[in-house]
Amino acid sequence: MTRYKNKYFTSIISKNRLELNSYSRLNYLNKMKRTLFLLTFTAMTLFSSAQSWIWYPGDYEIWLGNEMNNRRTERGAFFPHFWKMDSHYVLVEFSKKIDLAAAEEIEISVEGKFNIKLDGKLQFGMPTKFTLPAGKHSLNIKVWNQATPPTIFVKGKTVNTDASWKVTYEDKEWIDESGKASDTSATIYMDAATSDSFKSADTSPSKYKLPTEPMAAVKREKKNDGELIDFGKETFGFIKLQGLKGTGKVHMYYGESPEEALDTKFCETLDRLSLDASSVTDEARNVTSKSEDNYTLGNNKAFRYVYITKDAGVSYADVSMLYEYKPEVQKGSFRCNDEEVNRMWEVGAYTMQLTTREFFIDGIKRDRWTWSGDAIQSYLMNYYLFFDAETVKKTIWLLRGKDPVTSHTNTIMDYTFYWFLSIYDYYKFTGDTHFIQQVYPRMQSMMDYVLGRTNKNGMVEGQTGDWVFVDWADGYMDKHGELSYEQVLFCKSLETMALCADLAKNSADKAKYDDLATALRSKLEPAFWNETKKALVHNRFDGKQQEQITRYSNMFAVFFNYLSPEKQQLIKKSVLMNDSVMKISTPYMRFYELEALCAMGEQKAVMKEMKDYWGGMIREGATSFWEKYNTIDKGTQHLAMYGRPYGKSLCHAWGASPIYLLGKYYLGIQPVKAGYSEFAIAPNLGGMKWMEGTVPTPKGEIKLYMNEKNIKVTATEGKGYLTFVSKSKPKASKGLVEKLEGNKYRLLIEGKEEVVVSYK
Amino acid sequence: MTRYKNKYFTSIISKNRLELNSYSRLNYLNKMKRTLFLLTFTAMTLFSSAQSWIWYPGDYEIWLGNEMNNRRTERGAFFPHFWKMDSHYVLVEFSKKIDLAAAEEIEISVEGKFNIKLDGKLQFGMPTKFTLPAGKHSLNIKVWNQATPPTIFVKGKTVNTDASWKVTYEDKEWIDESGKASDTSATIYMDAATSDSFKSADTSPSKYKLPTEPMAAVKREKKNDGELIDFGKETFGFIKLQGLKGTGKVHMYYGESPEEALDTKFCETLDRLSLDASSVTDEARNVTSKSEDNYTLGNNKAFRYVYITKDAGVSYADVSMLYEYKPEVQKGSFRCNDEEVNRMWEVGAYTMQLTTREFFIDGIKRDRWTWSGDAIQSYLMNYYLFFDAETVKKTIWLLRGKDPVTSHTNTIMDYTFYWFLSIYDYYKFTGDTHFIQQVYPRMQSMMDYVLGRTNKNGMVEGQTGDWVFVDWADGYMDKHGELSYEQVLFCKSLETMALCADLAKNSADKAKYDDLATALRSKLEPAFWNETKKALVHNRFDGKQQEQITRYSNMFAVFFNYLSPEKQQLIKKSVLMNDSVMKISTPYMRFYELEALCAMGEQKAVMKEMKDYWGGMIREGATSFWEKYNTIDKGTQHLAMYGRPYGKSLCHAWGASPIYLLGKYYLGIQPVKAGYSEFAIAPNLGGMKWMEGTVPTPKGEIKLYMNEKNIKVTATEGKGYLTFVSKSKPKASKGLVEKLEGNKYRLLIEGKEEVVVSYK
Repeated sequence: MTRYKNKYFTSIISKNRLELNSYSRLNYLNKMKRTLFLLTFTAMTLFSSAQSWIWYPGDYEIWLGNEMNNRRTERGAFFPHFWKMDSHYVLVEFSKKIDLAAAEEIEISVEGKFNIKLDGKLQFGMPTKFTLPAGKHSLNIKVWNQATPPTIFVKGKTVNTDASWKVTYEDKEWIDESGKASDTSATIYMDAATSDSFKSADTSPSKYKLPTEPMAAVKREKKNDGELIDFGKETFGFIKLQGLKGTGKVHMYYGESPEEALDTKFCETLDRLSLDASSVTDEARNVTSKSEDNYTLGNNKAFRYVYITKDAGVSYADVSMLYEYKPEVQKGSFRCNDEEVNRMWEVGAYTMQLTTREFFIDGIKRDRWTWSGDAIQSYLMNYYLFFDAETVKKTIWLLRGKDPVTSHTNTIMDYTFYWFLSIYDYYKFTGDTHFIQQVYPRMQSMMDYVLGRTNKNGMVEGQTGDWVFVDWADGYMDKHGELSYEQVLFCKSLETMALCADLAKNSADKAKYDDLATALRSKLEPAFWNETKKALVHNRFDGKQQEQITRYSNMFAVFFNYLSPEKQQLIKKSVLMNDSVMKISTPYMRFYELEALCAMGEQKAVMKEMKDYWGGMIREGATSFWEKYNTIDKGTQHLAMYGRPYGKSLCHAWGASPIYLLGKYYLGIQPVKAGYSEFAIAPNLGGMKWMEGTVPTPKGEIKLYMNEKNIKVTATEGKGYLTFVSKSKPKASKGLVEKLEGNKYRLLIEGKEEVVVSYK
Repeated sequence: MTRYKNKYFTSIISKNRLELNSYSRLNYLNKMKRTLFLLTFTAMTLFSSAQSWIWYPGDYEIWLGNEMNNRRTERGAFFPHFWKMDSHYVLVEFSKKIDLAAAEEIEISVEGKFNIKLDGKLQFGMPTKFTLPAGKHSLNIKVWNQATPPTIFVKGKTVNTDASWKVTYEDKEWIDESGKASDTSATIYMDAATSDSFKSADTSPSKYKLPTEPMAAVKREKKNDGELIDFGKETFGFIKLQGLKGTGKVHMYYGESPEEALDTKFCETLDRLSLDASSVTDEARNVTSKSEDNYTLGNNKAFRYVYITKDAGVSYADVSMLYEYKPEVQKGSFRCNDEEVNRMWEVGAYTMQLTTREFFIDGIKRDRWTWSGDAIQSYLMNYYLFFDAETVKKTIWLLRGKDPVTSHTNTIMDYTFYWFLSIYDYYKFTGDTHFIQQVYPRMQSMMDYVLGRTNKNGMVEGQTGDWVFVDWADGYMDKHGELSYEQVLFCKSLETMALCADLAKNSADKAKYDDLATALRSKLEPAFWNETKKALVHNRFDGKQQEQITRYSNMFAVFFNYLSPEKQQLIKKSVLMNDSVMKISTPYMRFYELEALCAMGEQKAVMKEMKDYWGGMIREGATSFWEKYNTIDKGTQHLAMYGRPYGKSLCHAWGASPIYLLGKYYLGIQPVKAGYSEFAIAPNLGGMKWMEGTVPTPKGEIKLYMNEKNIKVTATEGKGYLTFVSKSKPKASKGLVEKLEGNKYRLLIEGKEEVVVSYK
């Protein structure tokens, strides 16, 4: 039940659940979840101990990412991305020092052509079994594979492939004239990468595929010369034509809306089949599959509707689909008295489910790519929903790719900075220092690229070929010169480098990046603060502040705490709650805008905004959240974008931010120290009568219920303060409530028992 | 006949050709060659105009190089190299601006998944035919291929893929919210790479294979429990067992010598087959081929002998081989009155034929890899033999690989410098500026790597992981501190960078590298010249000159003209012709040692050395030249190297230097200006009674005959001076002989007619 598949969603979305007592239902769900949680616990640990297929860190991720990103199509045309597509190292060497009490036979599975070296001596052929003698030995397995990443799986009584193996792309081990081997002490060895998805010899990584499940249409309807099929909600997978017979052509036009599916000239995606007496051909040359007369399309698509037209000589009995999904355990939850808010959370969770695939992608219909600015939001929502740490790491590796750096991440300057920021976020939520250390060298070279493009003020400016994105804005936004938004993100990135340098035990780098961050930060206010406008201006050009004020840098400066509390309050009035400043119409930037307001305690106002904005999409019929939405536009206008009538994505990860806002700023739960070893709980009803929910932690969860009189908290790992406001002295079932300034109180939450607080 | 295949060599090596009048035979050969030359002229031009498959420059070379380098085995184990193996760009975009008088249908062949964009609009599917409308258009084809390089072949009436197409790995073309495309003016486009090997749709580059030809053994002999097969000379290819039947195992042990083949415990390469009732299995998992009862091994090997043992249940009727070779036209030639010298040239040419494969490799038995220090000598010999410019370029691309640079070329410091030097050599012999411009960015990043590793004196010193090779020396050689040899090569590399920067029209770089080269050169004498020893010392450690004198830096300083003529003469005595200085026992360094002596006019002494050294190998039974040879060692000692009894390669490219020395310093022909637009001819009999030969030029040849009275010269392109010594005033059939200092004369050679000079 907690496996997040379409059946589950069919039920939660289509049933009226007002009849259920919400709290008891949540308890039931939580119990179910705990059971499953124990069953799947092994699969959730950050570091696994049992054997796994292993590879060079980041390499499988890059290869799989290419496979996924390259499934994008536009009206039957292959549509790969426009930045450098990297490749895995085609030749790598895995090694392990072993010390065996007794001789031991190992089984060896390899993806690639390989050799085995024992104590420096090459062994004949490519054996599938090999006996290691007792004692201390060096075991090396060197693999070449151009088509898919070199990976190995070794299984023995004590010798098994895991993260304790070393791996290099360049061993620099040569033999001189006398037969003496070289000094390899300068060779760079990484810890081998592993995954809980590949724990047996037969799960070779290059064969990895997301699972699918049959799903029926909810409605079939004749329209013009064809048939419109409705699957009831936004979904993703492979169309299946059952009982397909005859000779001629079949056209399939996909739509996230009925308008799109029926508009055969302009819908974004389509398929064409051609049947003759002996075979069915996909005209775009996708690999398809056939079983008897049932024909399954080869390229997965996003749609709710499919419109099918065909030649008279062709017939089919039925149309269904294979729903393709990433199996995720929904560990986070949220319920409250307001069903519109609950629905918002559920549609958000479903949007996350659809956009969490091999990697976190932007949207399922059009791009289907990993985009750094989109991904950092997916990660943050994920920490409040699936806590799928592995997919975060995978996406970070893929977005970074390989050296040399030849462009900003996804070519976008701001996306480079989000890439840095996302790494420290990951550390904060998971406490996984090891990953920071593994990825740190690529952080260095990425930052070298950025530093190599700063101007004489040490600031970044867009150069030709740099995409200065910021946001899909509804009005003119200047992208020239020094944008305050980019400098704020750059500054935070330098701070992130310093923090990660420290984790990677690189003190010289820590000092260097601390200095760079301090220097840049000291320039921000002089460069951009405008005392008349009481705000940071949008940009500076030729050393001159420009007139425009936008929300972006102002809201980031607020929650990065880059400005004094006084200036933050000024900004709240002059920018954030000022309707004359260009409004944000993407959930992408609304994410940060509402976060900034929440950080300043404006939960009530934000609740109103959320109900207006996300509630608005739901009232327009959304079954997943959109790429862009303007509460003023009604009807089908919302379908157009990028100059195309159906360009807009109706299932876009960045649409799901209520997941994050409700978890972090209403349940009020977040890590204070890495991996929730210390947490903060500062719940805020923000106008709701009651709320309850769960926030996952690396190996546990924090559960909270709150109404206007009581707060109940259970934390299965870590400790931290529950902070709340009460008019009178509150009572706690356990622990000592401390009074802070004003009406604020705090209570230390420790141990796994439920703590109940009464307040007013 | 001039196709350089085994049949030809069988004849030239095994027949006694003293009966032929050498000069008339040469004339005949030359006529034959000219005929063939015309036939193959198209295949020899540096830039082709007809359509070809195209790819990203260097990418196919890297991919094919990996395929070739990874065929190395050691006693049945896969043996790939120990430096980074690079990959092609897996996603590239080809583009072409077209302007058509009429609509035109093109045929499209692609290796990879692709799309077509016309004027920015994606087209459906992956069509094999496409109609381009009349008028001006942009045509883009974007291809993804992980397993093999993305390549395309377009054939139309006027639109055809050739070097005028552009290609990029990162187009940076995005579409903004309004549908507007980005400014791609900063995108880096290269000229597409082409090859004369891939001129039709069915010759797709990834299918490329060297041709083979059946070859019979010359002798079969029972030895111990098996049979020793002799193919009469060093050769390369696939063993074929004819009439193979039964059940059991067959073992094949290869040898360049009978000793090696018979030593089943220590021979360097071997194969094992296992036969059961239904199939034959190669136990090292090579892909093999079978036709009826004839079984051909899957992995090519170098050998003269193969020793076969088998189980009693197995039988075979005969053993033959498929000789695998690179088709080359032998455009250079040399003959003289001394048959030992002729034989040296022929064995050298055969050594070159065997080691010139997909790329120029070091030796055919063991490494079978591209090695920069070996390759630069292959290139130089090649300019006097095949003039195969394409294989030079391919090898240069492969040796360089991709950015980032993570080690010296082949991990060897000196080999990095030879890589730079080889590029300017290539320019000098071919005049191909375009290649210099294409490869220049990779020269920059390679030099950045070197400059990033210099010490406080601006000199290079070996760091951990750097292989300071110099030579396989017979005695101790210090590799610590600043080696004079490495600084001399480094200095020449900086000069090369300046020259190539100029060709690449990068004046800032030219100035920068000129300065660096001047600075380093000014430090060489103060650092290394020892007035007592009248020589450059081998190295400096902690700022102190060390005692050892070696030949290496001294001989390079001579022919780089880094020292005054006085010091050069001192070195000749104190080092080059001084037997107390450690002798060189590799043909590798003998190449430069003898070149230095020739450059100082010591052709007679060098002829004696050549007859002693290369003549010595021939007298030991060599049918191709060896990796290392010491004229003192006799018998089978010469087989051992690297601590292994048969470690030494008996067919090593660097063994073939007589080809180069005879062409450049006896025929005396070399380019003065790029591509032989101006040449120099300074023939020197060096003790021979007469000599004659041909030196190829980019589109022609220079033919020379000389005896003690006459010199005959024909040059089909370029012009230049014939310089010679005569006791009395010489006469010329054409042109005016000018007198120079002493007995020296010169005559300008121009036009295609033969010029005859009488001298004394």
